[in-house]
Amino acid sequence: MPKLSSRRVHTPIVLVNFKTYAEGTGKNALKLAELCEKVSFETKVCIGVAPQSVDIAPIASAVTVPVFAQHIDPVTHGSFTGHVLPEAVKEGGAVGTLINHSERRLKLADIDAIITRAREAHLISVVCSNNASVSAATAALKPDMIAVEPPELIGTGIPVSKAKPEVVSGTVDLVKRVNRDVVILCGAGITHGEDVAAALRLGTEGILVASGVVKAKDPYKVLLEFAENMHK
Amino acid sequence: MPKLSSRRVHTPIVLVNFKTYAEGTGKNALKLAELCEKVSFETKVCIGVAPQSVDIAPIASAVTVPVFAQHIDPVTHGSFTGHVLPEAVKEGGAVGTLINHSERRLKLADIDAIITRAREAHLISVVCSNNASVSAATAALKPDMIAVEPPELIGTGIPVSKAKPEVVSGTVDLVKRVNRDVVILCGAGITHGEDVAAALRLGTEGILVASGVVKAKDPYKVLLEFAENMHK
Amino acid sequence: MPKLSSRRVHTPIVLVNFKTYAEGTGKNALKLAELCEKVSFETKVCIGVAPQSVDIAPIASAVTVPVFAQHIDPVTHGSFTGHVLPEAVKEGGAVGTLINHSERRLKLADIDAIITRAREAHLISVVCSNNASVSAATAALKPDMIAVEPPELIGTGIPVSKAKPEVVSGTVDLVKRVNRDVVILCGAGITHGEDVAAALRLGTEGILVASGVVKAKDPYKVLLEFAENMHK
Amino acid sequence: MPKLSSRRVHTPIVLVNFKTYAEGTGKNALKLAELCEKVSFETKVCIGVAPQSVDIAPIASAVTVPVFAQHIDPVTHGSFTGHVLPEAVKEGGAVGTLINHSERRLKLADIDAIITRAREAHLISVVCSNNASVSAATAALKPDMIAVEPPELIGTGIPVSKAKPEVVSGTVDLVKRVNRDVVILCGAGITHGEDVAAALRLGTEGILVASGVVKAKDPYKVLLEFAENMHK
Repeated sequence: MPKLSSRRVHTPIVLVNFKTYAEGTGKNALKLAELCEKVSFETKVCIGVAPQSVDIAPIASAVTVPVFAQHIDPVTHGSFTGHVLPEAVKEGGAVGTLINHSERRLKLADIDAIITRAREAHLISVVCSNNASVSAATAALKPDMIAVEPPELIGTGIPVSKAKPEVVSGTVDLVKRVNRDVVILCGAGITHGEDVAAALRLGTEGILVASGVVKAKDPYKVLLEFAENMHK
Repeated sequence: MPKLSSRRVHTPIVLVNFKTYAEGTGKNALKLAELCEKVSFETKVCIGVAPQSVDIAPIASAVTVPVFAQHIDPVTHGSFTGHVLPEAVKEGGAVGTLINHSERRLKLADIDAIITRAREAHLISVVCSNNASVSAATAALKPDMIAVEPPELIGTGIPVSKAKPEVVSGTVDLVKRVNRDVVILCGAGITHGEDVAAALRLGTEGILVASGVVKAKDPYKVLLEFAENMHK
Repeated sequence: MPKLSSRRVHTPIVLVNFKTYAEGTGKNALKLAELCEKVSFETKVCIGVAPQSVDIAPIASAVTVPVFAQHIDPVTHGSFTGHVLPEAVKEGGAVGTLINHSERRLKLADIDAIITRAREAHLISVVCSNNASVSAATAALKPDMIAVEPPELIGTGIPVSKAKPEVVSGTVDLVKRVNRDVVILCGAGITHGEDVAAALRLGTEGILVASGVVKAKDPYKVLLEFAENMHK
Repeated sequence: MPKLSSRRVHTPIVLVNFKTYAEGTGKNALKLAELCEKVSFETKVCIGVAPQSVDIAPIASAVTVPVFAQHIDPVTHGSFTGHVLPEAVKEGGAVGTLINHSERRLKLADIDAIITRAREAHLISVVCSNNASVSAATAALKPDMIAVEPPELIGTGIPVSKAKPEVVSGTVDLVKRVNRDVVILCGAGITHGEDVAAALRLGTEGILVASGVVKAKDPYKVLLEFAENMHK
């Protein structure tokens, strides 16, 4: 594992993407982050939260779990109205950032520049990728983490624990061949605790989840199940 | 004047765009906002601040001057990772938002959608435009305000007070012919107090400024000069 | 009507968008253009074709009907690899171009710049717009033509002849109030000849069609029906 | 070397990007392509030309040198108005395409999809990349060729023959470690024949040039010098 730039971040990790869900916005986002903190405290598993940029500062000042931005731009201090400055996100209390999420796809040259800017601002970079070859390409850019989303697990509804092992381990192998140091998260196919256990067994060191937690009837229960299955 | 959706916002107005300037980020942004509040209190002129999204909540909870986002996206609650949700910006304490700034140009269909979304989230919409015909086009989309940047005043360094009056009044006329209700801000050519006075005399109801204030040696002094020239 | 920059273009007009349909690509595109020419010759109605950029030159050198590009970029001669230069499209034989089609939405500032560049390259500009307020905004940019797509007619499957008259005439009124000179095309809701007649009756001067012609079992028959209903 | 999908393409290769230069548009583009054909015939060196999409068909039907598009989109037959369909480019006579040129940067996911689409349409894919790590990332996507542009050679005006050897060979090594089969072109720093010789000596199998040829006083002379230095 590379030396992650925040003491609070360690693997295995559950990273919860709040998206722009009503349940993950404003006061609701804060409540959800507190709940993540509770489960993290109880299970000793690292649980990161990725709220919207507006919610980073209020959440980071209220909880101890690590906060991630959902996106940053490859900009510096200057004339970049409406962009997300890595240093602003850092000063707001974030320790890392998602990059190139499927809902916010970026140019290759910008992903490369953002990873560099994240490093300069002491933010952990978590790049999302949509298939095995893009995951391998991303690995060459040397981010701290890659959240892989095997196409066989998206849309199909097949959970990791029921999928052919190669679906996850194949991507892990391909990524590791390009970059042994990168931390791989499983970004799709996580529904139950057994999927978490399967994902770790197949070579990933954590999971990136969203609606499964944020829009769950009982997010506490789901998170607890996920976290408990993190102890291999 | 249209009924602006916040009691705190009234014309004439000075709107200060913090961009991603070091002087307008994080703790510095907070200090600058407090300084705007001081001048607003002393002069009774409305001074709005537009910090980065990460800084909206900390600033909005610390000062009484109206806070504007620098950008919002045409999204709703849902799966829009890395986008700026109008409702999040509102809950964070903003009363309005810049749209289509020259450093964050948007698609025509998205500007239209964002103005609608801003209205739904009770945010004042301030659309930036780069010339007379684009200003007229923008007026047809019925935003609350338009910040016009006559090309004759950008880059050339010619201040409003020294420019041919038609440069500003011509755009004002064109905009008013399409939409009588929209508030027009002068978004370029403001260097000294006399430029503020000239801008108001030529039909605008306020100014949008950035480096002139944010990167000034003495922002308090500049703001005071601007605000005092607001009293026609 | 404004003075359109090609003698071959006159209203009322049927403009056929070939998209990237198999039936509208390469040799098929040429055949389809020849068929448009046949119907135009028989009915004396102006029928324009909008093939892909690669197919402009072969088609323009083979048929007499006016050829339109599907898109041009706001670029000049210079370092703009992979962009569509207005002058290249003109020299290839096109007389005009679609701009801001719903499948190729553009930034407001770019639409404005493209209309200017089209004029400089002597290309007729046909801007697509998605609702009444965007149509009015587009009118302020002074293109030669606007192809309006009333939302009430898209997706719903309601043809112009069955829709409430205001759906089309309302947009026409709004556009004409901003710009009396622009030619308005009806870009949605055209299924049968009676829709063409209704569209013209409601104030438009032509239609923009795609799959209805390109993917028809018998494109000749459909085009003939459309063209014959152009004679009010 | 991978099996390139056109018999006419072989290494070492000179690939000439016509951009939107006046000297590379329309009739001028055709003349320039004929000149490339002449030099290719005289020297037996493969010289490819990359004109604008509008000029592909006229050029491909007039000359025997291989024609490349400057850009294609990750689209299929269907509703993609204004996009460049790989199959249309192929039917127009192109044998390959540039992808992700510095003047037309693309999203990582789109580069991946375009390489796949190019393969399906039997087009040779030539992806441009801006530094060593992006080149390595690109290699993982398995295009046919990569045109590398070492940052040390762009803007600085340092030609390959005068640069430190590692500047080029370092990138070559990094790329080959990820993908041994990809053909590497040198996309910057080529001014004189000795730069061509140096580029080949350092591990590339060809060059991508633009203004150096297209805007030369005597393009024939420059091309001849480049081609003659291709024979190692």
